Amino acid sequence: MNVFIIGIGLIGGSFAKDIKRIRPDAKIYGIDTNVRHLEEAVDLGIIDVKSNYDELRIADVVMVAIPVDVMIRELPQILNAVNDECLVFDGGSTKSLICKTLEAHPKRRNFLAAHPIAGTEFSGPSAAIEHLYEGKTNIICEVEKTAFKLQEMALELFQQIGMRIRYMNPEAHDKHIAYVSHLSHISSFMLGKTVIEKEKNERDIFDMAGSGFESTVRLAKSSPAMWTPIFEQNKDNVVETLEEYIQNLLEFKQLLEKDDFKGIYNEMNATNKIKEILNGIPLNNK
Amino acid sequence: MNVFIIGIGLIGGSFAKDIKRIRPDAKIYGIDTNVRHLEEAVDLGIIDVKSNYDELRIADVVMVAIPVDVMIRELPQILNAVNDECLVFDGGSTKSLICKTLEAHPKRRNFLAAHPIAGTEFSGPSAAIEHLYEGKTNIICEVEKTAFKLQEMALELFQQIGMRIRYMNPEAHDKHIAYVSHLSHISSFMLGKTVIEKEKNERDIFDMAGSGFESTVRLAKSSPAMWTPIFEQNKDNVVETLEEYIQNLLEFKQLLEKDDFKGIYNEMNATNKIKEILNGIPLNNK
Repeated sequence: MNVFIIGIGLIGGSFAKDIKRIRPDAKIYGIDTNVRHLEEAVDLGIIDVKSNYDELRIADVVMVAIPVDVMIRELPQILNAVNDECLVFDGGSTKSLICKTLEAHPKRRNFLAAHPIAGTEFSGPSAAIEHLYEGKTNIICEVEKTAFKLQEMALELFQQIGMRIRYMNPEAHDKHIAYVSHLSHISSFMLGKTVIEKEKNERDIFDMAGSGFESTVRLAKSSPAMWTPIFEQNKDNVVETLEEYIQNLLEFKQLLEKDDFKGIYNEMNATNKIKEILNGIPLNNK
Repeated sequence: MNVFIIGIGLIGGSFAKDIKRIRPDAKIYGIDTNVRHLEEAVDLGIIDVKSNYDELRIADVVMVAIPVDVMIRELPQILNAVNDECLVFDGGSTKSLICKTLEAHPKRRNFLAAHPIAGTEFSGPSAAIEHLYEGKTNIICEVEKTAFKLQEMALELFQQIGMRIRYMNPEAHDKHIAYVSHLSHISSFMLGKTVIEKEKNERDIFDMAGSGFESTVRLAKSSPAMWTPIFEQNKDNVVETLEEYIQNLLEFKQLLEKDDFKGIYNEMNATNKIKEILNGIPLNNK
């Protein structure tokens, strides 16, 4: 089986590692505009060979794991280059614009729109981890638009890697993911910004930071090149979640200003139910 | 050595465990208004015996690890009850009001105001962890007001437990800690609230949550009984950090609304320097 990974970073590289484990016969071809990443991926044994779009015609499976703005430009060309039996799937964090872009593509049936909910705040081939996807959710959109045989092939791969599958339409995906992923990134980036701004004037502040701060600000290490186009493509939903979040922060501040500490207690107590919710989330970083 | 722990939860219980390790001869007395916690602490071997304020006169060291509002009420009585050679220190997350409350106490020289920056989102004796304090920062305020011999005794204990010591005045402590700890808790609680509110109408949203969400929302599991009085005592600083945080979120939203994605990229890119800052933070949860 010839497996092509386009974009050999955390997401593509981790998939390559898992494919190698479950299909020892697979040959992994890597494509990336970053030559240094490609070399690194070969050195790390993540891919077997460096490749290019001309060779895509021999691909059985192609995973596309590149920033979502580049995805919009490249996916039509990738589909043009593959053969009729080839499965192409993506790992993008937005789904609406990707699905819309490929709607009328003659090879739409070769494409499966996917979003494996997995990752860390790190990037590049050296960030790739075996078993990253184990126990994680993979959201699949518009499954009915993919050829039946290729659906089957994709599901078999995802299940062997240990993912649980959820089906959703692209609009619902983008709306929900704004709450549970995109908003977290913004809250974390702005928390980091607020504290860094302070530190300009006040030294030593970071000697006082503990693991709680580290945890809430962890996502502020994420790649701007990856996240800017996600916020762009999901702008309307992200703005809505931000408005609700800012409103909740304003209300909390007003409770403080009014000395309504019973109200403050109740807010926190009600939100403690996040404990049970989090118990249901499969995690990488235990 | 007779060591009394008042408040046998995560902070007090973890200290008890470390004291037992570095001073095997120490006898650990536990005091807590929560009878179930006391029983649990005995069963877990965290304390040797249950005790009460009448016995405080035989104490050599007393650690007070109770919510900061209760601290204000109890610390004067605890100091009244101890003998002249006894060291009393606290572990509260605010320092100004505590120092002010004890300013004119006849046994002020027996007290050391401390804030060990360590913890997890869990509480109660079962949350106590050995080595919780290893490599962590302990902020000591108004050290000059503590008797020299008791300063020495405290520093020796803290150093044997592996803590690094920083000295600060109570006002600077409360101002800085608002940024690196109190604000993180609010950002996390309100993120949890925003997502939970959404979930009322939209099911299945949590199937889509990953480790990034878990990390940013982790502190929303924290105890409201512990955190409400912290926000109350540090209200002015906390309101100021909240205003700056909300302002940064509003500006980010405005960049999105204006389609200024170069601006969005720059914001995130500048905040990425949090990576180097975080590398300096000693963590529990590896």
